[in-house]
Amino acid sequence: MREQSARTAALVLCILSYLLVGAAVFDALESDAESGRQRLLARKRGEFRRKYGFSAEDYRELERLARQAEPHRAGPQWQFAGSFYFAITVVTTIGYGHAAPGTDSGKVFCMFYALLGIPLALVTFQSLGERLNTLARRLLLAAKRCLGLRRPRVSTENMVVAGLLACAATLALGAAAFAHFEGWTFFHAYYYCFITLTTIGFGDFVALQNDGALQRKPRYVAFSFLYILLGLTVIGAFLNLVVLRFLAASAGAPQRAARRASARRPGAPDSSRPGRAPRPGGSASAARRAHRLETCARDNLGFSPPSSPGAERRGEPDRPRARRRSI
Amino acid sequence: MREQSARTAALVLCILSYLLVGAAVFDALESDAESGRQRLLARKRGEFRRKYGFSAEDYRELERLARQAEPHRAGPQWQFAGSFYFAITVVTTIGYGHAAPGTDSGKVFCMFYALLGIPLALVTFQSLGERLNTLARRLLLAAKRCLGLRRPRVSTENMVVAGLLACAATLALGAAAFAHFEGWTFFHAYYYCFITLTTIGFGDFVALQNDGALQRKPRYVAFSFLYILLGLTVIGAFLNLVVLRFLAASAGAPQRAARRASARRPGAPDSSRPGRAPRPGGSASAARRAHRLETCARDNLGFSPPSSPGAERRGEPDRPRARRRSI
Repeated sequence: MREQSARTAALVLCILSYLLVGAAVFDALESDAESGRQRLLARKRGEFRRKYGFSAEDYRELERLARQAEPHRAGPQWQFAGSFYFAITVVTTIGYGHAAPGTDSGKVFCMFYALLGIPLALVTFQSLGERLNTLARRLLLAAKRCLGLRRPRVSTENMVVAGLLACAATLALGAAAFAHFEGWTFFHAYYYCFITLTTIGFGDFVALQNDGALQRKPRYVAFSFLYILLGLTVIGAFLNLVVLRFLAASAGAPQRAARRASARRPGAPDSSRPGRAPRPGGSASAARRAHRLETCARDNLGFSPPSSPGAERRGEPDRPRARRRSI
Repeated sequence: MREQSARTAALVLCILSYLLVGAAVFDALESDAESGRQRLLARKRGEFRRKYGFSAEDYRELERLARQAEPHRAGPQWQFAGSFYFAITVVTTIGYGHAAPGTDSGKVFCMFYALLGIPLALVTFQSLGERLNTLARRLLLAAKRCLGLRRPRVSTENMVVAGLLACAATLALGAAAFAHFEGWTFFHAYYYCFITLTTIGFGDFVALQNDGALQRKPRYVAFSFLYILLGLTVIGAFLNLVVLRFLAASAGAPQRAARRASARRPGAPDSSRPGRAPRPGGSASAARRAHRLETCARDNLGFSPPSSPGAERRGEPDRPRARRRSI
């Protein structure tokens, strides 16, 4: 437990440092350009005001009107196609904000919609991603057999490399497509795909906002929706492969050491399930394996898998865990 | 495997239906209001144009200037406090978009920053959330003991209710605070907190954008950052408790049935780890438990925990899994 808390504290310090470093770098990269743009805009605004003789109040009103007109610039956003696009940005948590509910009832429905839709989407992408990983594993195995390897085996490293390539290909394909359809540069289209598929979704670049695409280009609309959903599956499959493994593999040692220490102390409090009797019998190796899996799941995922009674009461010493190489 | 694919297909149909229903409802709620706002804006714009005698081109230029001036309206966004705020919206994937990198180097750095920062944040919130769940479990246990219960036990239902209350309290507290500091209604502030803590982050409501708060109100700035980070921890802890459990518990039966069927067929292909010899010995019950845990982890999380050799080759029949009630 103490080790888990230490690890958590270390992670918190780590992320805080990461934010501080990021802030400094973004400041350095963007601050001057921001001041430059602001000065340029102020100058142009001044020119307009002198040309037309705006009062300050009228100019502010004009700016307000222009801001309010912004969401309408790309055509209606709340007809069926636009609403479907919006619904995607809600359940995937991309949340561009190019359209956001204007009515209070829309806001209320949006919150309930997200409450159910986000977990549903999480579970679906998780499930799709796992199927994709399984398919990739089979294809890699078949490829290795075709290459004539005697005992073909798909290692974790193989899967990670394949995953990275799949992510890169997904981003590049999307970038090429959106650069063509939206008239963006390849770099900006790549940036758009990246920001979308990581679900950050700033909204500085949003597809389907030019030329009334939502109403007039149904095939491009369908492509965009499919790209987002399939792209999220690929990214999700890769995250499933890499991040969850890391969670499970990296934190094993500190907890085992702590549990070994507490198991040797008679009467030490067990924080998990008081009152459960240890199961009778069982070989040492199978019981140790089950024990490792349960504690691994509990400590790293915050829950114990169902039907895993408390084996940690046995007090058997743990073997050092070898890092698995094959899937 | 076939059951897993059927489950995945069912989930995909489910999410597609959910998106269609959502689209229809948002269309019904927002479309008319959108047209109404658009007509009102067009009328006001016409009044201004008649008052000042704009050319169409000049008016478009004016609107463009107003759009570009929008990010500057709330003061500089890229000094240190603003950049830190931006960095938070990147690693948490909230991505309001109130500020987005204007320079290409800023965009490039942003992508690399997200690539490392998002997994780091995921692991940190996961870890913090698990600690929070552990603390909550202990507090609930202590509370039950104080209430004089003879064999106090914290059930999953207790934890879920506690989690729901914690989420609701977090949202309500945030709503009260931001309504006060930003001058929003309680409902809009609640909506802001909800959209932020689900990481959707439309950007229609963004804190720290009034009265130059980023530069002039350091304590409010610190509060906002802390609120976002702690609020995400609470939400993450609840998701950890509920969604991951559901993933583990709900999909067990189909895979066990499938594996039982395939294990009875001699020579049936094993898609996971060909070439591994089964481990010798072991009691039936401990081995079955380990087997269940491994398959549960593999099928639902898409990976096998480390040091879990292929037990599924044993071909032992599985007991039906009882749903766990206590943690």
